[in-house]
Amino acid sequence: MNFASDNTAAIAPDILKAIAAVNDGFVLGYGNDPVTQDTRKRLSEFFGREVAMFLVPTGTAANSLALAHVTPPWTGVLCHANAHINTDECGAPEFFGHGIKLIGLPGDHGKLQLETVIAAIARYSGRSPHQVNAASVSLTQATEAGTIYRVDEIAAIAKVAHAAGVKVHMDGARFLNAVARLNASPADVTWKAGVDVLSFGATKGGALAAEAVVFFDPKVAAMMPERRKRSGHLFSKHRFLAAQFDAFLANDYGLKLARHANDMADLLAEKLGAAGIQILWPVEANLVFAAMPKALDAKLRAAGAAYYVRRSEGLPEDQMLVRMVTSFATRKEEVEQFTALLRG
Amino acid sequence: MNFASDNTAAIAPDILKAIAAVNDGFVLGYGNDPVTQDTRKRLSEFFGREVAMFLVPTGTAANSLALAHVTPPWTGVLCHANAHINTDECGAPEFFGHGIKLIGLPGDHGKLQLETVIAAIARYSGRSPHQVNAASVSLTQATEAGTIYRVDEIAAIAKVAHAAGVKVHMDGARFLNAVARLNASPADVTWKAGVDVLSFGATKGGALAAEAVVFFDPKVAAMMPERRKRSGHLFSKHRFLAAQFDAFLANDYGLKLARHANDMADLLAEKLGAAGIQILWPVEANLVFAAMPKALDAKLRAAGAAYYVRRSEGLPEDQMLVRMVTSFATRKEEVEQFTALLRG
Amino acid sequence: MNFASDNTAAIAPDILKAIAAVNDGFVLGYGNDPVTQDTRKRLSEFFGREVAMFLVPTGTAANSLALAHVTPPWTGVLCHANAHINTDECGAPEFFGHGIKLIGLPGDHGKLQLETVIAAIARYSGRSPHQVNAASVSLTQATEAGTIYRVDEIAAIAKVAHAAGVKVHMDGARFLNAVARLNASPADVTWKAGVDVLSFGATKGGALAAEAVVFFDPKVAAMMPERRKRSGHLFSKHRFLAAQFDAFLANDYGLKLARHANDMADLLAEKLGAAGIQILWPVEANLVFAAMPKALDAKLRAAGAAYYVRRSEGLPEDQMLVRMVTSFATRKEEVEQFTALLRG
Amino acid sequence: MNFASDNTAAIAPDILKAIAAVNDGFVLGYGNDPVTQDTRKRLSEFFGREVAMFLVPTGTAANSLALAHVTPPWTGVLCHANAHINTDECGAPEFFGHGIKLIGLPGDHGKLQLETVIAAIARYSGRSPHQVNAASVSLTQATEAGTIYRVDEIAAIAKVAHAAGVKVHMDGARFLNAVARLNASPADVTWKAGVDVLSFGATKGGALAAEAVVFFDPKVAAMMPERRKRSGHLFSKHRFLAAQFDAFLANDYGLKLARHANDMADLLAEKLGAAGIQILWPVEANLVFAAMPKALDAKLRAAGAAYYVRRSEGLPEDQMLVRMVTSFATRKEEVEQFTALLRG
Repeated sequence: MNFASDNTAAIAPDILKAIAAVNDGFVLGYGNDPVTQDTRKRLSEFFGREVAMFLVPTGTAANSLALAHVTPPWTGVLCHANAHINTDECGAPEFFGHGIKLIGLPGDHGKLQLETVIAAIARYSGRSPHQVNAASVSLTQATEAGTIYRVDEIAAIAKVAHAAGVKVHMDGARFLNAVARLNASPADVTWKAGVDVLSFGATKGGALAAEAVVFFDPKVAAMMPERRKRSGHLFSKHRFLAAQFDAFLANDYGLKLARHANDMADLLAEKLGAAGIQILWPVEANLVFAAMPKALDAKLRAAGAAYYVRRSEGLPEDQMLVRMVTSFATRKEEVEQFTALLRG
Repeated sequence: MNFASDNTAAIAPDILKAIAAVNDGFVLGYGNDPVTQDTRKRLSEFFGREVAMFLVPTGTAANSLALAHVTPPWTGVLCHANAHINTDECGAPEFFGHGIKLIGLPGDHGKLQLETVIAAIARYSGRSPHQVNAASVSLTQATEAGTIYRVDEIAAIAKVAHAAGVKVHMDGARFLNAVARLNASPADVTWKAGVDVLSFGATKGGALAAEAVVFFDPKVAAMMPERRKRSGHLFSKHRFLAAQFDAFLANDYGLKLARHANDMADLLAEKLGAAGIQILWPVEANLVFAAMPKALDAKLRAAGAAYYVRRSEGLPEDQMLVRMVTSFATRKEEVEQFTALLRG
Repeated sequence: MNFASDNTAAIAPDILKAIAAVNDGFVLGYGNDPVTQDTRKRLSEFFGREVAMFLVPTGTAANSLALAHVTPPWTGVLCHANAHINTDECGAPEFFGHGIKLIGLPGDHGKLQLETVIAAIARYSGRSPHQVNAASVSLTQATEAGTIYRVDEIAAIAKVAHAAGVKVHMDGARFLNAVARLNASPADVTWKAGVDVLSFGATKGGALAAEAVVFFDPKVAAMMPERRKRSGHLFSKHRFLAAQFDAFLANDYGLKLARHANDMADLLAEKLGAAGIQILWPVEANLVFAAMPKALDAKLRAAGAAYYVRRSEGLPEDQMLVRMVTSFATRKEEVEQFTALLRG
Repeated sequence: MNFASDNTAAIAPDILKAIAAVNDGFVLGYGNDPVTQDTRKRLSEFFGREVAMFLVPTGTAANSLALAHVTPPWTGVLCHANAHINTDECGAPEFFGHGIKLIGLPGDHGKLQLETVIAAIARYSGRSPHQVNAASVSLTQATEAGTIYRVDEIAAIAKVAHAAGVKVHMDGARFLNAVARLNASPADVTWKAGVDVLSFGATKGGALAAEAVVFFDPKVAAMMPERRKRSGHLFSKHRFLAAQFDAFLANDYGLKLARHANDMADLLAEKLGAAGIQILWPVEANLVFAAMPKALDAKLRAAGAAYYVRRSEGLPEDQMLVRMVTSFATRKEEVEQFTALLRG
């Protein structure tokens, strides 16, 4: 009954197999190997266009490299105040970006509203060279609140952003959870809607450690090889990074895993709701936020359940805001065992 | 017949097995798992004292984090002019160190002589705040030239460094190749000789991607968790990084692999020498540098051999400087097949 | 009738005279001259204790150097959302601080309330190494809104800050305007109240370009000479920087100028109020913020008046938020000429 | 008898007068004033083409801003090993450039030879993304050794640089000393010879503190306003920075001052030579390097002479390498008084 995070899970079986499958013989290092080339091809097919791909081991690296590349040092990133890049990466985007500013904006359920972005672009424009102006906007898909941007929401934000010369980044640590739910193609959710650069995560989805920075216009990626290398994120035995991502994409493996994680979140939310526990935000990916009675929390933990408590302003004294995360590794029995405890 | 680099090899069998062995169930992320704790304990035993350990996936990350931590932004690192940190990391130490200066020094066979270090410390001291002064010295063990610092050489350099308030870093991308050759304990080669911080590499030695920054005085490591995190090098599924390093240390596995690689280099050098080819520098680790006749080079390549050509000032017109690297994966037959071609 | 900014004024007469007075003969550069030594002594006397002084030409430099020195790269500065460091320095603190985060907090009239700081320290503590934690808090004295922190307010904030290991910075671009109003000694307003480092501005107060970073505990200033030098802010002909600051301090010259500026602001506010124009925030230094009828604004500008319009949410359609700044150079006749126009 | 440095001198009379001349009334800050506009015009006329001008107070700032602007973080600057940027700016170019590498090259008399630059460009090209490649070359005019690049030497280096995509920076802390000697126009020595960006110093030449970063193609200067601002080098009372530079250019004032300084150096060298003291390097600007007998040095110092001793490898035991610098403020009598002591 571990719902602490999707990164407490292990490696999905086919991804571990893929690592083993390429573990033979000598190949060139640093991405000049056939596995990497195949992965790049597969990724381009996945998105229906030629993309530039940079594999790195962590989401923090992917986000920071992507943001630094589209946000000059004296500019800023518009993002949700609770975005992972703003709250959980220890200033990595600021480090990679040589002192860029992350401009946290409000928004219900972890999402930026169009009008918020419009106002922020207006505010963080002009007044050069005194003010830090916005050079990029970052959307988290799915968000930290487990919600999802609809394709038209992304497109509307991207439109105003591009009109102001602002690039659009998508933090897709849980990208396939969003794609799985949206019933839209990866292209629809990204470049067709105006996303310029995507941090496409596989780690939370089942990899050992593999994330892709994806530029939909390869020209924008110029000098990214240098940027990645000097951050220490260019693997010498690169085939093993590629093999993970390749397996994640092949046969819709990652998508199937994401769908399972989403289903488990739905089940969890349904059972929690049925037990009278309030679900706080729409469950659209693999995260469930609930107002957990403190007494129940104690019981669940005593029974071995694991999940995180979040700052919970506004809840009654006897409740706490808890976050439960499902993953490819969450079993239905586990959810049922957990929710059975709610009844007692 | 692949002698291009030790990072063109795959994953050593026991390390891959170790990854699979921990691929079960849920554990806390970010290093708060039992595998990581065991690895830390094992590493401390390996060095015979309590150490602070920070696992990262690449040597560039390990070196850069270590150097940045002991070299304030306005100071410099004394290193060999041909050190990997100075020539092959795309400015990563400068990036992590917020603009530190790498001060390349000359030295035969890739090694810094004591007198060179003494002179450099004298030169890069005082004249504050105008000059960049030396805050650290980095020794590569084994060096890029395949040579090895003896324990007393390290100790002598460390003594003058410490007397000047200069910290000693060791770039140990091929650390166990050196240890295997030196017939000395890991402690002798490092903290007992005055090394403050070690980049201890497992990747070239057989891991998928695993390097440890090792502080012999854990107090020096304060704030290193933050430094690693914001560089994107803190793995969420940290157990898989730890498992690699653990297997590398367990039962002297890495040491045995290193010994094999060294033996293959010896064999290669011996056969090359027997065929009348000049070995340029002492073969002390797993690298062989030779003055290869160009005609022979063509023949070897035609037969499928792989190795790198280096800038070769000073050689006769009909020769080229080639670097051949052996690894845990180099087979004796391969060496023999290769050297058989020399005779023809 | 120029109320645009206190930096649209020229150099105060005695400061220009002081520059000319030391313009003779050869002296050592870079601050090793007698003028600088005298200034340091005078500054220590001014504050009633031995201080470390670093002169630089701009407020942005002073603030950024001071903040970078007490805020490690992976930490943050608590400050008012509208603080100059956060809105008008183009990311300079982030640049000097190698990617620190400025954490903008709300507060009426440009001031941080104690409870806001307490809550922010609680929020930006712990959760290492994922979160950027607060390492410093910056108070602007006088604030951008023209208000002033009382001695006990500073002391209360400093107390909670120090208890959490958070350093206290004061942005004193208009420091003497505050001192002049508070009827307290410079020591009371700073180190006795818990301020660790002060950006003490003379430029707005009458200098050509001179600001002092003042550390009240000189030990904290270690390595600041290097930090200043590598930012390009160490003057070679340093005597001319020192002479400005010295003249500013001597005979309470700067204090008298500040008092005049404050008096002119009072007069301006009084006359505006008498003319029925709403003064928005308490006038405690040399800034007046008013809700100016748009018709009147047009008339004033036509008559040659200069001041800035600020974003004015919440005002009636026919009014605009205007900022008027007085300075040592503001003449009473000018204020009267300006306010006479209000009546018409 | 002060020959320590040209920055131990005071402000040249006409420059101080120019500061006083604009010390009246209110003008817009930050360079939006008529004095600055006039200076920009005058500077463009001086160079015979439209230039982009950025005034800053120190040479370190000018060099670092210029270099950072044409040298992306993962690239390097080719420069003489003894260049001021490499030895005396405490890592400022590395700081402003976010970790660029300064690649020190050898060269007699402080000058880079064409063949050295050709070889360095060849060496620091390609091998991306592993190696730091050269993005710029910096020539010091006049050099730290008091020598001067001839127009055709600059042109030849610029040609090979541009062919390789490498920008040409000129550190002109003593630019007018070179121009005065070369009998060439400022245009000839810079953009016509291929210089892309110049640090044009006035401080050593007679200003209080004023240097101009000059871009000969204004398009290259895009984003430089932001870069300057966030380094704290945008003066609010900018008119006083402009007035200095303006006076320096007006009526060839700076050129005349430089000519005088050069003449004094010639006289000094002539008299030293006549006294049998060896002049080590050609005296082409306002610096004289001599092999001073130690006994004589003692006598000179006892008489009150001031100059610096430099590291003097290769000189006989009883001699020392001394550097004597003349300036606009050096009087002929002073030189004669000094050289009279040589005879005794």
